[in-house]
Amino acid sequence: MENTVLKAIYERRSVRHFAPQAVEPEKIYEVLKAGAWAPSGLNNQPWRFAIVIDEAKKKAVSELTRYKQVVLDAPVLLPVFIDKTAMYHATKDHQSMGACLQNMLLAAHSLGLGAVWLGEILKNAEAVRNILALPENLELMAVIAMGYAAKTNQTSNRKTLNELIAYNDLQKGV
Amino acid sequence: MENTVLKAIYERRSVRHFAPQAVEPEKIYEVLKAGAWAPSGLNNQPWRFAIVIDEAKKKAVSELTRYKQVVLDAPVLLPVFIDKTAMYHATKDHQSMGACLQNMLLAAHSLGLGAVWLGEILKNAEAVRNILALPENLELMAVIAMGYAAKTNQTSNRKTLNELIAYNDLQKGV
Repeated sequence: MENTVLKAIYERRSVRHFAPQAVEPEKIYEVLKAGAWAPSGLNNQPWRFAIVIDEAKKKAVSELTRYKQVVLDAPVLLPVFIDKTAMYHATKDHQSMGACLQNMLLAAHSLGLGAVWLGEILKNAEAVRNILALPENLELMAVIAMGYAAKTNQTSNRKTLNELIAYNDLQKGV
Repeated sequence: MENTVLKAIYERRSVRHFAPQAVEPEKIYEVLKAGAWAPSGLNNQPWRFAIVIDEAKKKAVSELTRYKQVVLDAPVLLPVFIDKTAMYHATKDHQSMGACLQNMLLAAHSLGLGAVWLGEILKNAEAVRNILALPENLELMAVIAMGYAAKTNQTSNRKTLNELIAYNDLQKGV
């Protein structure tokens, strides 16, 4: 039987070109719910979400990144924040945020959507927060740009397991 | 049609009690491959993996955490490291490591395995690295304990989306 979870993990790609059609609210909420079901240390769930559809808001956010066109094209932006008052250990909390973001990307893929995790915009994290009039305890961790993909032919590549395994007790090799 | 990716995201649980049976090497490598297919900034792929099966090594690692019994019970330990020489931005790299770890947990779940992400052991990160005789550029990020689950009846809980959404342009509520 096909393992559709592994298939999603291997076939998901960063999507940066979107069709103009809107994304159903139910799908947007499902993507957030998937993010919310990530594991976190002490189950502290430090993630907080924003849903940006408004064209003026998207335009303002687009000015804060070199990936302006991606932000303008995407029907939905999902800025993802960490609640600093919920944190207990920076490294572990940032890892949890990554688990949350990956769940969101896999969920989007599974729902027939395309998405890309934008990190470069963190150089303007404060400005993004201010555009959305959010309080100082929320620190931007990433923006996911999402929509129906206009192109899905991206390729990607990874190191081989032999390059990545630093210690191995198994007798049988990769 | 059932969305098996979302199902895995929602049904995965931390598994801390394991059956004694060994895990097939093919499944262990598949879990690592899933981790390796996480996204990372600049595709820098900072993750490095260890596979620990040896009883003496597991015993030594178990002494470094309050979750000693989980480590001893698990047929497989997967200590996951970051290669500090591959890093470019601490917060983003730690997020990528979290994406990698979440892929590994979802992959394990999809393969019928149980696993738990152990973070508390990071207080002894250097000691774990020394047990495996790994170089100083590898910093422990987490240990995944993995095997066939002896018990799978755990429950878990999450905040509601209404608690987690800080900004919302959608007209239609959750």
